[in-house]
Amino acid sequence: MRHPKNKVTVKPLLTVKWVNGKVVMIDQTKLPTRLVYVEYNKYEDVARAIKSLVVRGAPAIGVSAAFGMCLAAFQSKARDHHKLLSDLEAAYETLKSTRPTAINLTWALDLTMAKAREGNSVNEIRKSILETSIKMADEDINTNKKIGQFGAELISNDETILTHCNAGSLATVGYGTALGVIRAAKENGKEIRVIATETRPVMQGSRLTAFELKHDGINVSLIPDTASGYVLSQGMVNRVIVGADRVLRTGHVFNKIGTYQIAALARRHEIPFYVAAPKSTFDLKSELKDIVIEERDRTEVIRVGNRLVAPLQVRVFNPAFDITPPDLITGIITEKGVLFAPFEEGIRQIIGPDR
Amino acid sequence: MRHPKNKVTVKPLLTVKWVNGKVVMIDQTKLPTRLVYVEYNKYEDVARAIKSLVVRGAPAIGVSAAFGMCLAAFQSKARDHHKLLSDLEAAYETLKSTRPTAINLTWALDLTMAKAREGNSVNEIRKSILETSIKMADEDINTNKKIGQFGAELISNDETILTHCNAGSLATVGYGTALGVIRAAKENGKEIRVIATETRPVMQGSRLTAFELKHDGINVSLIPDTASGYVLSQGMVNRVIVGADRVLRTGHVFNKIGTYQIAALARRHEIPFYVAAPKSTFDLKSELKDIVIEERDRTEVIRVGNRLVAPLQVRVFNPAFDITPPDLITGIITEKGVLFAPFEEGIRQIIGPDR
Repeated sequence: MRHPKNKVTVKPLLTVKWVNGKVVMIDQTKLPTRLVYVEYNKYEDVARAIKSLVVRGAPAIGVSAAFGMCLAAFQSKARDHHKLLSDLEAAYETLKSTRPTAINLTWALDLTMAKAREGNSVNEIRKSILETSIKMADEDINTNKKIGQFGAELISNDETILTHCNAGSLATVGYGTALGVIRAAKENGKEIRVIATETRPVMQGSRLTAFELKHDGINVSLIPDTASGYVLSQGMVNRVIVGADRVLRTGHVFNKIGTYQIAALARRHEIPFYVAAPKSTFDLKSELKDIVIEERDRTEVIRVGNRLVAPLQVRVFNPAFDITPPDLITGIITEKGVLFAPFEEGIRQIIGPDR
Repeated sequence: MRHPKNKVTVKPLLTVKWVNGKVVMIDQTKLPTRLVYVEYNKYEDVARAIKSLVVRGAPAIGVSAAFGMCLAAFQSKARDHHKLLSDLEAAYETLKSTRPTAINLTWALDLTMAKAREGNSVNEIRKSILETSIKMADEDINTNKKIGQFGAELISNDETILTHCNAGSLATVGYGTALGVIRAAKENGKEIRVIATETRPVMQGSRLTAFELKHDGINVSLIPDTASGYVLSQGMVNRVIVGADRVLRTGHVFNKIGTYQIAALARRHEIPFYVAAPKSTFDLKSELKDIVIEERDRTEVIRVGNRLVAPLQVRVFNPAFDITPPDLITGIITEKGVLFAPFEEGIRQIIGPDR
């Protein structure tokens, strides 16, 4: 905290919340033109919302899926807990199938399902998974604030930070991971400028990161994804910070398509490249080859809104994520502290043997 | 020509042409949804067309500007050649100010202006610059076919070639530079697949390259710019070929924003990276620091058609070009042959001392 006189507090957006038996979310497909909240009382609608990117961002879809399980528990007409568990298992499968790459989805679903299995009555299970899910949502914000504080210590005053996609309050319950670090640096009184990449094709950078940083009064400039190499080469960036959808025990990071090329260019120009991710994003069991990189629909690429921007019949390759190898990563910022290479030992220490 | 049995001829689109005293162009802002031809009989309209990207691509804007000079010559009410030269000088300035980075614009304007200065009467000047401009247009296609043949010799059967932006028939009078190489390889009977990047923000890859390659029956897949590092890292690409807006005597290449990061990633994965450019794209006089990188309007980034894709008031940085250093370039394909590093000597030999 170098400039306590400038200390400010920002109030970020709340992405997903449990309100009176319903799940309330910002409909992120409507941003940046309209800030619309939607509410769901069926888990099937939550699954659709995850799939169609009404809610996105690894931590946010984890919490949304947990709340989806709560809806399923209240939707269920089960008279006994065996039937309820079987209904919850069906909901688990539906919610899990929505998106394959982010680990937090599976983590959150496994956690609620494990809680449910401990219960001995319908009411007990309902109560326990709702408590678990609300706690998960609350912890998400606390976790991000811890990530923010650890990350903010890395940042000097007057830095320009490049970020890709949206690892902000809109990717989490609130505060954000990569953008949480930026928020914490700002709250600590540091002057920070952010360069946000558009992040085609879904444009989470333009629509979400630019929106939420402006909302919080943080200095942000938008660039096309094609300009990221140029700005990194021109000495315009002091540091890159991104989020993650899955971090393997080796330190390989699955994150939004385009992350890898930014990491490679940052290395070329000797710019520190950081990943901000909570423990729930780590996957110590899987091998690199096991992870499915989601390929999303071609319409994301050939249309923007109703406007056709490519020939209707053109073949499209639209992978949603890529892999950044650990040798391109300067550090991984977690709620337990910042890990530096080699990552394997540090990751094992903070996550423990159980995951 | 390895597979003479498969020899095919493709008929590319004609980007700009002189027809009955008018300049006729494809309006590239309407592609890919509509193939519309526009005609102009005032040089001011040609200048506006260049500025607003109705016509784009370094060779195509060179020829368009030359035809603009012809229109100016016929528009002029001058009774003597001194007055005509002064009218042409005004047109020269207007046309030259449209876009700063591509050298072909200046090259074409200088050539027509020099021709005009040789004339001794209004009619003689009109005739001579029209002949010069039509010859320039014809030569553009011949030049591209030579580039195509030299480039095609580099390409093996069954390659996947990644290209960025549009260095195709739509960037030239016809046939194209980078895509001319691909056309020539196909005409020589080789099986070629193309990966085209979208090329945000103006989307010349989606709108133009995907359109013209499909038009010619060439196998093309479209990827978001964010996926280029991923496809290069996954062994999906055998070769990169791009065009150029300006090549310095050192071999530094100014080309569409995003070229540099692709070149750096290609080098990282040991994939050959070629630039296809006619002699008219070379600038032996300027220093790196002298070249203005055009910054285009923020609306290109925050809007797609009428749809707002970013907060209306967000700050935008929208450079139209970047710089690829010679150490990332495997070869430069010209109508005189393929140059390899170190480029300086080869460039001097093919261009001669006069430019």
